Amino acid sequence: MTPQPRLVEVRQNVLRQNDVRARELRQRFRAAGVFVVSLVSRPGSGKTAFLEKALTLLHARRRVAALVGDLATENDAARLARSGAPVRQITTGTVCHLDAAMVQNALVDWQIDQLDFLFIENVGNLVCPSSYDLGEDLRLVLLSVTEGEDKPLKYPTIFNTADLAVITKMDLAEAAEFDEAAAESNIQRVRPGIGVSKVSAKTALASRIGWRT
Amino acid sequence: MTPQPRLVEVRQNVLRQNDVRARELRQRFRAAGVFVVSLVSRPGSGKTAFLEKALTLLHARRRVAALVGDLATENDAARLARSGAPVRQITTGTVCHLDAAMVQNALVDWQIDQLDFLFIENVGNLVCPSSYDLGEDLRLVLLSVTEGEDKPLKYPTIFNTADLAVITKMDLAEAAEFDEAAAESNIQRVRPGIGVSKVSAKTALASRIGWRT
Repeated sequence: MTPQPRLVEVRQNVLRQNDVRARELRQRFRAAGVFVVSLVSRPGSGKTAFLEKALTLLHARRRVAALVGDLATENDAARLARSGAPVRQITTGTVCHLDAAMVQNALVDWQIDQLDFLFIENVGNLVCPSSYDLGEDLRLVLLSVTEGEDKPLKYPTIFNTADLAVITKMDLAEAAEFDEAAAESNIQRVRPGIGVSKVSAKTALASRIGWRT
Repeated sequence: MTPQPRLVEVRQNVLRQNDVRARELRQRFRAAGVFVVSLVSRPGSGKTAFLEKALTLLHARRRVAALVGDLATENDAARLARSGAPVRQITTGTVCHLDAAMVQNALVDWQIDQLDFLFIENVGNLVCPSSYDLGEDLRLVLLSVTEGEDKPLKYPTIFNTADLAVITKMDLAEAAEFDEAAAESNIQRVRPGIGVSKVSAKTALASRIGWRT
């Protein structure tokens, strides 16, 4: 297969370019004094519900904003805008992840030094986003109780590149026969020592995730 | 950004090569008289549970086998092997989808003319698998009741390339406050006329999906 080595080479160039841009972004975020949190998970693990709660909670006391990535639709930006925080949708077309350039472009006319927290919700995908640094300070990986306790073993890279794991939809744990111990042990096997929080958007969020507001 | 056009060009070459191999596969499947069904969905929508039921049901009366794709682990092959059918795992490393070459390699020492049905479970992903023809006769896209009714609108391509949509985990529909009408209408918006089946691996499957056994 001739194209394979060329694809690898081009991919490395793309990732190298992304790293350069991500470093620029990280410097810009530091200089502006904004703390940047990104969220990754498969589609439908509750990233938007989580973010909607977080923005609503934080908006009263902190200056918060969000970028949200999807292949198509502006549904999530519309949902998140209900929190009152500034929100911008990034539509990626057929691209299965955000990259640093998309984040740079989305921020071009935003005064980020006016923000305390910026959230970046990635495209729902457990593979592609893992290779792309977005300049964030903290990356959360979400895992819902309905998706199977072995997902960390099957998608190790995305858990490996995350700083905190959040188990969502805990209100469905019993109905889904969720094995909490197995999920936690699988997370620790691929990312030893990572913090694990458990939440439900239908119950209290702030106390369990421990936002320092 | 210099690398973008090169990436597109290489991607087109890869897809073109895949189409050639998929055509070869399809001819081989036809000649062997085996009907090939592939399954796509996000991670944890129930592809393996669905397949486990289908294999167990069909195994008594038909000659069935399965290939199952994951980035890592042989968990799914082990689960599916409990049905008694021959099963082979394809581990893709960091690749977010199966391609026709992987299927060809996995089948190299199998006598597929001894089979009536071959199932191919793709890597859990709502983006990458949509561009890769695997030579299958029928592609099922699975959507579970816990993942949000708007997913077809957000991931239109994967629904567009499928022949049948299957809504899974119907036993959780009430707990997840699943809006069946909204989900069906969103599926029809991106893929007009597609058949939609509703199943639960905890209840009867065969009568609802209507396998012609």
